[in-house]
Amino acid sequence: MTKPPTALRWNTVAIYGVGLIGGSIGLALRKRKLANRVVGIGRNAARLQRAVESGAIHEFVTEPSKSPSPDLVVLCAPVQFLAEHCKTIAQHFPETLITDAGSTKEKLVAEIDATVPHAKFIGSHPLAGSDKSGAEHGNPDLFDDRLVILTPTQATPKAVTEPIASFWESLGARTVTMDPKPHDQALAITSHVPHIVASSLAAATPEEHLDLIAGGWRDTTRIAAADVELWTQILQENNHNVLQALQHVRSTIQEFETALAENNRDSLTRLLAAGKQRRDALGS
Amino acid sequence: MTKPPTALRWNTVAIYGVGLIGGSIGLALRKRKLANRVVGIGRNAARLQRAVESGAIHEFVTEPSKSPSPDLVVLCAPVQFLAEHCKTIAQHFPETLITDAGSTKEKLVAEIDATVPHAKFIGSHPLAGSDKSGAEHGNPDLFDDRLVILTPTQATPKAVTEPIASFWESLGARTVTMDPKPHDQALAITSHVPHIVASSLAAATPEEHLDLIAGGWRDTTRIAAADVELWTQILQENNHNVLQALQHVRSTIQEFETALAENNRDSLTRLLAAGKQRRDALGS
Repeated sequence: MTKPPTALRWNTVAIYGVGLIGGSIGLALRKRKLANRVVGIGRNAARLQRAVESGAIHEFVTEPSKSPSPDLVVLCAPVQFLAEHCKTIAQHFPETLITDAGSTKEKLVAEIDATVPHAKFIGSHPLAGSDKSGAEHGNPDLFDDRLVILTPTQATPKAVTEPIASFWESLGARTVTMDPKPHDQALAITSHVPHIVASSLAAATPEEHLDLIAGGWRDTTRIAAADVELWTQILQENNHNVLQALQHVRSTIQEFETALAENNRDSLTRLLAAGKQRRDALGS
Repeated sequence: MTKPPTALRWNTVAIYGVGLIGGSIGLALRKRKLANRVVGIGRNAARLQRAVESGAIHEFVTEPSKSPSPDLVVLCAPVQFLAEHCKTIAQHFPETLITDAGSTKEKLVAEIDATVPHAKFIGSHPLAGSDKSGAEHGNPDLFDDRLVILTPTQATPKAVTEPIASFWESLGARTVTMDPKPHDQALAITSHVPHIVASSLAAATPEEHLDLIAGGWRDTTRIAAADVELWTQILQENNHNVLQALQHVRSTIQEFETALAENNRDSLTRLLAAGKQRRDALGS
């Protein structure tokens, strides 16, 4: 007779970088009573203190080596620091499981494989976010029914993949695995290019016409309000794939331009129908 | 001593074309008890019968001249038929106030001015809609706190403008007036181009990646699901202004392409910040 599965319960989980995503992980762990202790790691003590006050973490350290030994560290800092943070954690806590929450995977995973091959690391990308930033906007239900993509390599042992998958599932998410490279190619069009499209439309709209917008403009530009620094990093990390996907969108826009210049009814209908067919395939 | 203003109450309002907008007008008139009789005019008796059953209209005629004499007719048919419908109504009911609910104004108003100069007509554009179509998706509160743009010309008497403005306000809307030409120029970017951008992004996303989309893609492409026939007509009616506004968006997209190709951090930040500044000016 096997025991029924029990919810994972961690002794200590550390969150390295306590912003919107890190704060939401802390709130989710505490709401679901999955960790005895949630430790924040970061440089800005005042910000970490606010994360304590908002209930996202129990305590914090500004020096990673001073953390109580964690079972799991989730790296939630800006993507350009993640490999360095992974290295620091693996040096001080060689037995600790490590994952991240970054939006791009190929460069990061390759860098960690090359520089910290023995780290018990697997890349994670939770498809969850907000147009707000900061732990004070954290949401314990942010991962509910969201997808988290895990990006193991051939070198990643199941002893790393499985507990990290269980970790995200315990926060309410579904998990899938993908190789890092196709992950970044797919996310270029499903996540990164939409920010460019939304931003370009917003920027092209004269401010004096903002009182004439309707619901469509509002929805289409919503993510143009996202954090500029974060999205600059993501676009830089994934620039080749984003460029390719963006060129694809732009060539469709140019087909619309030709159809408008010719006032070609059939072309306009065909182009609009192609977009509708794809959007309808998703559902609302 | 002047009397306090009283709510407008019409004897007979006719709605020529009972789809989503026309159906919502009927529902709003009836919910607010603003008309004794709401008559639908159209060609498709089965569809009009369903509009009776859904409560949008009291009765219908498929021959405009058979309508009980209306105080007001709201033309809600596809934009290419509106001038012809206006002419028909003005011939049979020369004293009747006439307005429309179309998304473009310059060509329509010019055509009516030229062909039916004595019609008691003023163009209206309610900035309200839905990604659904048909009277069965009508909503009596669709115009609540929405903007309706009236497009009088120099020939439009106040005796037409004022009661039509009051009509929309009695449905809960705010009204402003604009000349037809700047209306169409402004709406090109605030309403029409977003449909092209949303559609192009949706069409460029491979179907097998739809399970990897997050909230941003969902919002940005939402209006790609809109009615293809309706939007083909709108884009055709306003093709020159839409083309110009779309080229403006496309040139910003190409600036993003250059910044990505160069992996230019400063350019990416500047471009994203410009979009955020404009979007933040609107609020959520």
